Amino acid sequence: MTTSIQSWVERVRAGDVRALARAISMIEDGRPESTSLLKALFPHSGRARVIGMTGAPGAGKSTLVDQLAREYRKQERTVGIIAVDPTSPYSGGAILGDRIRMQAHHADPGIYIRSMATRGFLGGLARATTDVTTVLDASGKDLVLIETVGVGQDEVDIVRLADITVVILVPGMGDDVQTIKAGIMEIADVFVINKSDREGAERVEREIRAMQTLAIRPDQWTPPVIKTVATEGKGIPELAAAVAGYEEFLEQKDLLLKKKISNWRERLIEMLRETLLERLLREQVGEGEIARLAAEIAEHRRDPYSLVEEIVDGFGCREERQIHHGDTETTTPESQNRAFRGPRARRTGK
Amino acid sequence: MTTSIQSWVERVRAGDVRALARAISMIEDGRPESTSLLKALFPHSGRARVIGMTGAPGAGKSTLVDQLAREYRKQERTVGIIAVDPTSPYSGGAILGDRIRMQAHHADPGIYIRSMATRGFLGGLARATTDVTTVLDASGKDLVLIETVGVGQDEVDIVRLADITVVILVPGMGDDVQTIKAGIMEIADVFVINKSDREGAERVEREIRAMQTLAIRPDQWTPPVIKTVATEGKGIPELAAAVAGYEEFLEQKDLLLKKKISNWRERLIEMLRETLLERLLREQVGEGEIARLAAEIAEHRRDPYSLVEEIVDGFGCREERQIHHGDTETTTPESQNRAFRGPRARRTGK
Repeated sequence: MTTSIQSWVERVRAGDVRALARAISMIEDGRPESTSLLKALFPHSGRARVIGMTGAPGAGKSTLVDQLAREYRKQERTVGIIAVDPTSPYSGGAILGDRIRMQAHHADPGIYIRSMATRGFLGGLARATTDVTTVLDASGKDLVLIETVGVGQDEVDIVRLADITVVILVPGMGDDVQTIKAGIMEIADVFVINKSDREGAERVEREIRAMQTLAIRPDQWTPPVIKTVATEGKGIPELAAAVAGYEEFLEQKDLLLKKKISNWRERLIEMLRETLLERLLREQVGEGEIARLAAEIAEHRRDPYSLVEEIVDGFGCREERQIHHGDTETTTPESQNRAFRGPRARRTGK
Repeated sequence: MTTSIQSWVERVRAGDVRALARAISMIEDGRPESTSLLKALFPHSGRARVIGMTGAPGAGKSTLVDQLAREYRKQERTVGIIAVDPTSPYSGGAILGDRIRMQAHHADPGIYIRSMATRGFLGGLARATTDVTTVLDASGKDLVLIETVGVGQDEVDIVRLADITVVILVPGMGDDVQTIKAGIMEIADVFVINKSDREGAERVEREIRAMQTLAIRPDQWTPPVIKTVATEGKGIPELAAAVAGYEEFLEQKDLLLKKKISNWRERLIEMLRETLLERLLREQVGEGEIARLAAEIAEHRRDPYSLVEEIVDGFGCREERQIHHGDTETTTPESQNRAFRGPRARRTGK
């Protein structure tokens, strides 16, 4: 570990806001240095309780999350908030919005808020969120609240990072139990009906109860339903208590580690998937080559299925590849094709 | 190519419904034989025009797609329909629903309808949809209509497969321009306001127009807005004409190939990502090992970042790996760990 990484780690662990911000930006940008930092921070993480909070657009998530954070501050627990919005085209964190939210907490150093938005198509927002959680956890935050819009697979993946999942519904949003993704209803540990002073709150509760009678969870937990009016702070202590109740349940039944293992299983596979592709694109098939091959496929001069097999067969054969890169200096189509025939070339080469 | 694959290919090309159904099931199940079939079918594909149709739940997509298919049948063009619902937990195709929809077309052999739902977490619904499109295309269908719910990244990925994208909106679905994913609005080549006899249709149209003045597309195309009442067949010929209009535009400007190349670029990367992971899990780190490693991470005995690097470093170059598999026959934890240290072991081994 270099000295600069080491001092950075120490500053993050001390909760230094600028060190935190720099670490998170680096993760968001997918910079390779972030891996060294994460390796060094990981052993210091694992203490924070991670709470995922999700709901349809307009459910009042930010307000609810801010209020819950305020409640935890009363309990003298420190809080990190990651606000993820995969539907937003903005990147680099919606800095202005974060500042406004921070100010609402009177610049309390016990709260750190950071927005994250969709990255390019090699995205990995779930991965980035995991990494930022590790950073906030290592910085000593007692709780990490991850807030996201519950409308797609990305969001289910993000919410799956959490130890505890809170699903936020609101009255009057349609005929079916809300327009949020079906899979999210199933992973709720606690339900919130926010804006519960509106007409229809009872109906939403009945719908949740009806759903609960249809499917009993493997862990036998029945998610409580908490009614809140976040803008007025109503129901917030009850929500904190419900979360604590599930936390206690997890601990009593020794389920927390089991849940963490199952989460890490999925994250590990996701990390492998991304890292493999990243390395393939960096070391073996550059962006330019991908574009050329895509053109050959689009013109039906090549089938993608055989091509993918060839490329994957040749993956990781560094020495072989170097030889081929030598060949491809003369850029006849024939020699370019050969670059992906690692195994075959090797066989005939012997 | 084996005789059985060859005869299967011939039956698919002849439009044999049972051969089609078997091919699609095999793709859905991710069976390895499907790759051989796809390799053989791909050279016979590329003729069909692929139209993606997406919209919020309740927008009346199925009815609209069925009506459009009927319109194309009047023009004596054959149609394949892939109905993708990533929010549905069902798998293997919603056979009953497909039959009912087929019957609505009086069992017309010029129409083939197939539902596809979410698979497990190694999913790849976009990949499966691409593959089924290849099959329907090779079977001689003039048009392939892909119908999906436009609420998440999965859906954007699926719709991106299409040559032409139709986004379906309905009046009265909320304050913002519908609850569908922002990215989908931007990829619409044709807008449909379905159920346009309802109040608010004009408002939706104004919102689309307002959005269009804000962002001019790189190809300078202004997506037309078509009003339909699908249940009554209203506006359907106009929709078909609008689609044909964009098709003509693409051809005039020589944009179709460009679009196909850009689509294949993304698909190719996605295929590589999945195939790499699949092979890693099959050949190097089994599910059991992943579970064991996840436990070590959850207990903070190991950091995931270094672990992923080690595993990826050791992946590839089959001959090397076979040597290590020899080692790991004695399953001490130490020798198991060594399996991930391909490069290091190789270096010392020389």
